[in-house]
Amino acid sequence: SIDPDRLWDSLMEMAKIGPGVAGGNNRQTLTDADSEGRHLFQKWCEAAGMTMGVDAIGNMFATRPGTDPDALPVYVGSHLDTQPTGGKYDGVLGVLGGLELIRTLNDLNIKTKHPICVTNWTNEEGTRFAPAMLASGVFAGVHTQDWAEDKRDAEGKRFGDELDRIGWRGTEEVGARKMHAMFELHIEQGPILEAEGKDIGVVTHGQGLSWTQVTIHGKDSHTGSTPMPMRKNAGLAMARILEKVEEIALSHAPHAVGAAGHIDVYPNSRNVIPGKVVFTVDFRSPTLSVIEDMETRLRSEGQAIADAMDMQIEFEKVGGFDPVTFDEGCVTAVRSAAERLGYSHMDIISGAGHDACWINRVAPTAMIMCPCVDGLSHNEAEEITKDWAKAGADVLLHAVIETAGV
Amino acid sequence: SIDPDRLWDSLMEMAKIGPGVAGGNNRQTLTDADSEGRHLFQKWCEAAGMTMGVDAIGNMFATRPGTDPDALPVYVGSHLDTQPTGGKYDGVLGVLGGLELIRTLNDLNIKTKHPICVTNWTNEEGTRFAPAMLASGVFAGVHTQDWAEDKRDAEGKRFGDELDRIGWRGTEEVGARKMHAMFELHIEQGPILEAEGKDIGVVTHGQGLSWTQVTIHGKDSHTGSTPMPMRKNAGLAMARILEKVEEIALSHAPHAVGAAGHIDVYPNSRNVIPGKVVFTVDFRSPTLSVIEDMETRLRSEGQAIADAMDMQIEFEKVGGFDPVTFDEGCVTAVRSAAERLGYSHMDIISGAGHDACWINRVAPTAMIMCPCVDGLSHNEAEEITKDWAKAGADVLLHAVIETAGV
Ligand SMILES: NC(=O)NCCC(=O)O
Ligand SMILES: NC(=O)NCCC(=O)O
Repeated sequence: SIDPDRLWDSLMEMAKIGPGVAGGNNRQTLTDADSEGRHLFQKWCEAAGMTMGVDAIGNMFATRPGTDPDALPVYVGSHLDTQPTGGKYDGVLGVLGGLELIRTLNDLNIKTKHPICVTNWTNEEGTRFAPAMLASGVFAGVHTQDWAEDKRDAEGKRFGDELDRIGWRGTEEVGARKMHAMFELHIEQGPILEAEGKDIGVVTHGQGLSWTQVTIHGKDSHTGSTPMPMRKNAGLAMARILEKVEEIALSHAPHAVGAAGHIDVYPNSRNVIPGKVVFTVDFRSPTLSVIEDMETRLRSEGQAIADAMDMQIEFEKVGGFDPVTFDEGCVTAVRSAAERLGYSHMDIISGAGHDACWINRVAPTAMIMCPCVDGLSHNEAEEITKDWAKAGADVLLHAVIETAGV
Repeated sequence: SIDPDRLWDSLMEMAKIGPGVAGGNNRQTLTDADSEGRHLFQKWCEAAGMTMGVDAIGNMFATRPGTDPDALPVYVGSHLDTQPTGGKYDGVLGVLGGLELIRTLNDLNIKTKHPICVTNWTNEEGTRFAPAMLASGVFAGVHTQDWAEDKRDAEGKRFGDELDRIGWRGTEEVGARKMHAMFELHIEQGPILEAEGKDIGVVTHGQGLSWTQVTIHGKDSHTGSTPMPMRKNAGLAMARILEKVEEIALSHAPHAVGAAGHIDVYPNSRNVIPGKVVFTVDFRSPTLSVIEDMETRLRSEGQAIADAMDMQIEFEKVGGFDPVTFDEGCVTAVRSAAERLGYSHMDIISGAGHDACWINRVAPTAMIMCPCVDGLSHNEAEEITKDWAKAGADVLLHAVIETAGV
């Protein structure tokens, strides 16, 4: 069994870096705070006797050797970056749960056949640089490294330049590592486990996602002296499309969700009719055809709204992944570990995207979820209990020991 | 007659300060560019033999003495600040048209009985610091100076601190000056004069305005893993209210307009359901009761939308003025000047707010409007012809000569 107090202390220590404004964190990817968090993680890994490798996109790999020199490592981990107003556990639990696993093996002097490698994937959140799960996507060969490095944040800063600036570009070729298996522990970020009173979610599938960035070109003009019939109010066109997004998602209820989290209005002045709006629609479903249907309807109904208002509209897909089915062997390892340890558990579909969704393409992969209070995540008030953290890390430990062999 | 080339050259010279991104200007109030524009205006005024006074809120008053030592000055002027993506003429024409008037009097060696004072009012636009026409409002006793100085921009910077920082806080008590009359030349910012083929708008009234800032508190949570029924999507609530704003304004057509130009979404991340939105609704009408009705309906229908979606909503009035009737004597002076000079003209109601609307409360005031291409303003593509500028400045010259006496 892992040491829940030690795990909790590490979570709280990490949370001091990049504090938020309301008890959570703002440790966005490739910021100075991200770099500081990485240094702390590296220090802890080295103290636990691991060797750190960093690849050319900043992914960190801390390895504890195995007894079989030919055996591929079992990977565990998640991400240390956060939302701008994020919680202390989203991603972090998976990385520090992996570290706690190593510390526990050290304490118990257990040697595994396969090496174990604790990973911190760069830019999982995708807020600063879309899309999410960017560096695990490059690792899995879904994106090219050049494409990823050319992504720009809202201030126009390039991903690749920011990676160099914070000093975390390593020398390893991205994706060169081969994996025996990969396990990601993560908080659920939804309400199901808590409502069902389960300690552990055995993640069998992941929802797919589509991010469409919509740009509407109206005409900026004076809010007072432009007659109503002469207006091209891009904000109003956006409002009509946001209502459609809700309608489209609800038409597939309960098997789909949809919303726009990102909205920028130009020039954003009280007395100027918005001449341009840019917003991103996020549609998700466990069923690929549903995602495709929602995306198609957004484009056709959005176009119709813009046409009726005599405005130009553009749609650009800025992120997306298909629904995922995790590896049966790894999923079974998670389920039987929960069973053996006596934790209540249920199979669950991940509502969020995770690095594991991409890594599943190149290695047998599964995820372990633990509940979070009120299902709340991507919010500074995100909370979990120490017991939930312990259950999740225990199941991770046992699934990994089984997979890595002793 | 004024010198249209000299006026135009000055307009183009001023437009070099705080250039925009698309041929217009970004010379927002109390920025370094604003300060630079003020210095240029001061240099020109001094070269034209005027004496500059600056009051404690940064209003600039350049005076050409009259022949009667007891006569109160006739004021002309407008504002040199612009929208973030503003045009080269909105405000500037009124200030530099006033300067051109003085240069012409100097050329012709005409002495007036009353002094003439060319004014640049601080923060007319209201984008950086709401409300609009802030410093003329203080001058007219509508706002206190402390209230104005405590206004903050989007970055939290205080109006009073920024005034000190750019070095344009003068020593004159705000509002201490007494006026014989005030004339403001301004572009129409709407399409009527051009459509009617008139050179001059004789402004008899000004529309009233109400700015209501609306804050909706939803709950930021994960866009993927939060089930639709558990969401409190503040962006969707906003969308519904924006549709209402359109409906409310159209219900009073053609005697009202309404729109939201300012929209901020928090935390503005693609995979976070908006937990908070703040936006400002701008309603206008020449009829006070219509403005009041629109404001009341916004509050009641907005509250109903928020209640139905189980969200908190707040309404704050951040700007407003009642419809204005300009001084009959001054309006007649404008109309007869246009008549005498042979310019085509019509009576018109100003759709926008102007410093003249506040000054009208403390001195006999009128406005002169000239057309602008396609009625477009608050847009970098705002355009006027040199002929329109000449017509406006000529009428200003003649109305002022008549009022100031020779
Ligand atoms: N787990 C998580 O929040 N990942 C970010 C990608 C997503 O929006 O699902
Ligand atoms: N003239 C002008 O654009 N003034 C700004 C105040 C308003 O929005 O009407």
